[in-house]
Amino acid sequence: MPSPPIRRPRPARAEGSSPGAAGGPGRPGPRADRDDVRGDILRVARELFGARGFKGTTMRAVADGAGVDVALVPYYFGNKDGLFAAALELPIDPRTKIDEVFAQGLDGIGERIARTMATLIEDETVGRAMIGLMRSAVTEGPAHDVVRDFIENVIIESYARHLDAPDARQRAALAATQIVGMAMGRYVLRIEPLVSMSTDELVAHIGPTLQRYLEGG
Amino acid sequence: MPSPPIRRPRPARAEGSSPGAAGGPGRPGPRADRDDVRGDILRVARELFGARGFKGTTMRAVADGAGVDVALVPYYFGNKDGLFAAALELPIDPRTKIDEVFAQGLDGIGERIARTMATLIEDETVGRAMIGLMRSAVTEGPAHDVVRDFIENVIIESYARHLDAPDARQRAALAATQIVGMAMGRYVLRIEPLVSMSTDELVAHIGPTLQRYLEGG
Repeated sequence: MPSPPIRRPRPARAEGSSPGAAGGPGRPGPRADRDDVRGDILRVARELFGARGFKGTTMRAVADGAGVDVALVPYYFGNKDGLFAAALELPIDPRTKIDEVFAQGLDGIGERIARTMATLIEDETVGRAMIGLMRSAVTEGPAHDVVRDFIENVIIESYARHLDAPDARQRAALAATQIVGMAMGRYVLRIEPLVSMSTDELVAHIGPTLQRYLEGG
Repeated sequence: MPSPPIRRPRPARAEGSSPGAAGGPGRPGPRADRDDVRGDILRVARELFGARGFKGTTMRAVADGAGVDVALVPYYFGNKDGLFAAALELPIDPRTKIDEVFAQGLDGIGERIARTMATLIEDETVGRAMIGLMRSAVTEGPAHDVVRDFIENVIIESYARHLDAPDARQRAALAATQIVGMAMGRYVLRIEPLVSMSTDELVAHIGPTLQRYLEGG
């Protein structure tokens, strides 16, 4: 991690920001400055991701919009994924999580995904962020577009990369419907008897559905 | 349908209200009165359903809250289901739809439900109401509680009544997760390739999941 190019702000990690933020060494600048830079970048990032989507937004455009040196964006957020996760207030890097789950191959992938998702949502911080995403998703406007873009270009794309099939994106999208529905029913709507089901029971029911969708057929 | 007990308002149907409303004969009262009564009943119904849930809300309590004769509630809304559907601005009676789908037995029920749901949501009026429900569902507070109550006590209960099994409610709730997820992905988030899938394709993928959940095992 290089030193910050201008203003040398304290690493974002020290301010309790998202774990996706880079934590290199650097001399702290004045407190007001440090807060402004990170906040300005995030504010512009949310605007641009909303208006142009994940693919159409460059770190340079975000830096230009925030009036900061382009190198400050990776300094604070690592890369565009990290910036996106921070803009969505996601405390985890979804791509890394998905890669971990698929690292053990397709055998049993359905149950592993169901268990990972349940565990993540049951974590207070992650769960709150995911419910925030779903709130944004049901609005109309930029927030909805950011979430759609995130699911299409980060979540579904990450799943699809691990599926060697022409209909990989369709399989991944079908799996996403079951994941979103499970999250909605158990954690957002909090419908019984979904809430009182054990994680093992939930995984035993939802896992085979995800397995079928991801394997295709 | 008896004549309205007081004020003899014009049947609600003539005012373009929900199809669940009763449409018996009756002499019209002054326009301002008619609007107030129906609107007052709905306003109080939303409050009470939110605070006490579907089961804890009686038509009498709603009438008392609105300061109208108790017979005016069934006059405008038929029964408590109709009142609830109107409070949720649902243009269909979900119980009737569910009964229709199950009338042909459990064989092929998964595909029939998937097709019925897709068709309903693709109807502009019904779709808008369903998306409104999902918006309420992701909020915190009375609106969330009304939707949860509706799904637990109307939707899941209606499904479960048709499933002769000790775990009927669990099966129904699992099916609900897939239905909600499909609706969220295709119609609320509008994620590709879910949106461009034909209804037949969608039914072919989602149907077997619903079938497995509802049959159990």
